[in-house]
Amino acid sequence: MGRPVQLQTPQKVGDIALGSKDRESTELNLHRLASLPQAPPLPEQFGEELAAVEATVECSPAPKMHCSYDAIHQSIAGSLDVLRRGGFDQPDILLAISGGGLIPARILRSVLRKGSNNGGCAAIQVIGLELYSDELEGRPHEAGVRRTQWLCGASSQLVGKRLLVVDEVDDSRETLCYATRELLADIAQQEAALAAVGQPVPPTHLGVFVIHNKLRPKKGCLPAGVPQFVAQELSGAPWIVYPWDAPDIEEHNRLGAACS
Amino acid sequence: MGRPVQLQTPQKVGDIALGSKDRESTELNLHRLASLPQAPPLPEQFGEELAAVEATVECSPAPKMHCSYDAIHQSIAGSLDVLRRGGFDQPDILLAISGGGLIPARILRSVLRKGSNNGGCAAIQVIGLELYSDELEGRPHEAGVRRTQWLCGASSQLVGKRLLVVDEVDDSRETLCYATRELLADIAQQEAALAAVGQPVPPTHLGVFVIHNKLRPKKGCLPAGVPQFVAQELSGAPWIVYPWDAPDIEEHNRLGAACS
Repeated sequence: MGRPVQLQTPQKVGDIALGSKDRESTELNLHRLASLPQAPPLPEQFGEELAAVEATVECSPAPKMHCSYDAIHQSIAGSLDVLRRGGFDQPDILLAISGGGLIPARILRSVLRKGSNNGGCAAIQVIGLELYSDELEGRPHEAGVRRTQWLCGASSQLVGKRLLVVDEVDDSRETLCYATRELLADIAQQEAALAAVGQPVPPTHLGVFVIHNKLRPKKGCLPAGVPQFVAQELSGAPWIVYPWDAPDIEEHNRLGAACS
Repeated sequence: MGRPVQLQTPQKVGDIALGSKDRESTELNLHRLASLPQAPPLPEQFGEELAAVEATVECSPAPKMHCSYDAIHQSIAGSLDVLRRGGFDQPDILLAISGGGLIPARILRSVLRKGSNNGGCAAIQVIGLELYSDELEGRPHEAGVRRTQWLCGASSQLVGKRLLVVDEVDDSRETLCYATRELLADIAQQEAALAAVGQPVPPTHLGVFVIHNKLRPKKGCLPAGVPQFVAQELSGAPWIVYPWDAPDIEEHNRLGAACS
């Protein structure tokens, strides 16, 4: 489990500082916490593309990281600046990945509205994705992602929009890779349809926002040109216990406070 | 704004006790808080169908009711018993109304899983609805609801399922009326399609869950046979400030605590 991490105060997020190799990678636009102290280089197992994004809050050994609702709210609110610098503070649509992205997307919508010049409000559209594994059935290589809900009708019109995919955590990155790849395919299809009838094809911008990014080996990269915004980077890939999964919210908060 | 109400402790919910007139109405299955003291009869303006569901927590005069995340979590967790008695503790699908229903649905899914005998987990499907009004444009009678997202593909298969529509608040009831009516129409269409090809048509069960129900005149009734489950009834139709809309979560909690 490595070193658990505790969210207790809002974290400011800032510009990215990547090494030369990273500048060429699809991780180019990964945004990270800037107000936290620089940590030593990560072991090689984390992959070079993640070597420059270590920035954590640490506490005494414990197997789980209990996040309170308020800390998560503050962490998302603290991401407004980095979203603004990345040009994603006024997205047209928040594409929430269900179920993990539902709560962060709803909070983020309010945060963005507060930060908006004209009180504008991003729409929320939901895509349902389920990460599954057939390992128990002896098919370890067939793990993957499946859709439980997708966009249709008017909600599927993405061309010309500024779109921000929202999830709670970037863990193995499988779900985010699937979501962004499939959305880009939908966008390309819509662009082709417009071009085929001589219609103008306005540019579409796609980004990703997560509350937490675990600094661990990923199973894929985000597509080139898709920036990722992170409220808090976590080393040691802790087991995050989100408050919405807490059997007893008071006990949950007590466990979190004990590690603050 | 009437009397504001403050959520600070989990509320147990219990069986309904309706008057004779109500027993004949489509409000028959409205579930309410049973552990709170009975309040005096409501003024006539609230409508007879609501006369038996007054049960509130009150505090000193203030224009707004600030609910904390933890109080809402506890309130939803406290609804498990009444959902069990109503036969909706193990729904197949939570139909979250976006944006308001996203957070309660995600919390409720965990609560239901905790209460499940086999650890089973309800799926979440999202329908996007927007209550709009054209009053500003001089068309006061054309206010209504419009879809921003709906079910499609595999997610639209509802027949034979136990379905629980989830929203944050039952205010004017317009959104809930629209959602349940449209879902019943979809179900009827799917049933007819099955029957047309000689397939069996298993029964489908539809219910509604909200965190708060404002005891105020409603613009419609839920369809007959659709039970409503409420975590907390509120008299005086207070202006509820949900934590996800708080510009400053610490100030929000301070305002809520001042009215506890």
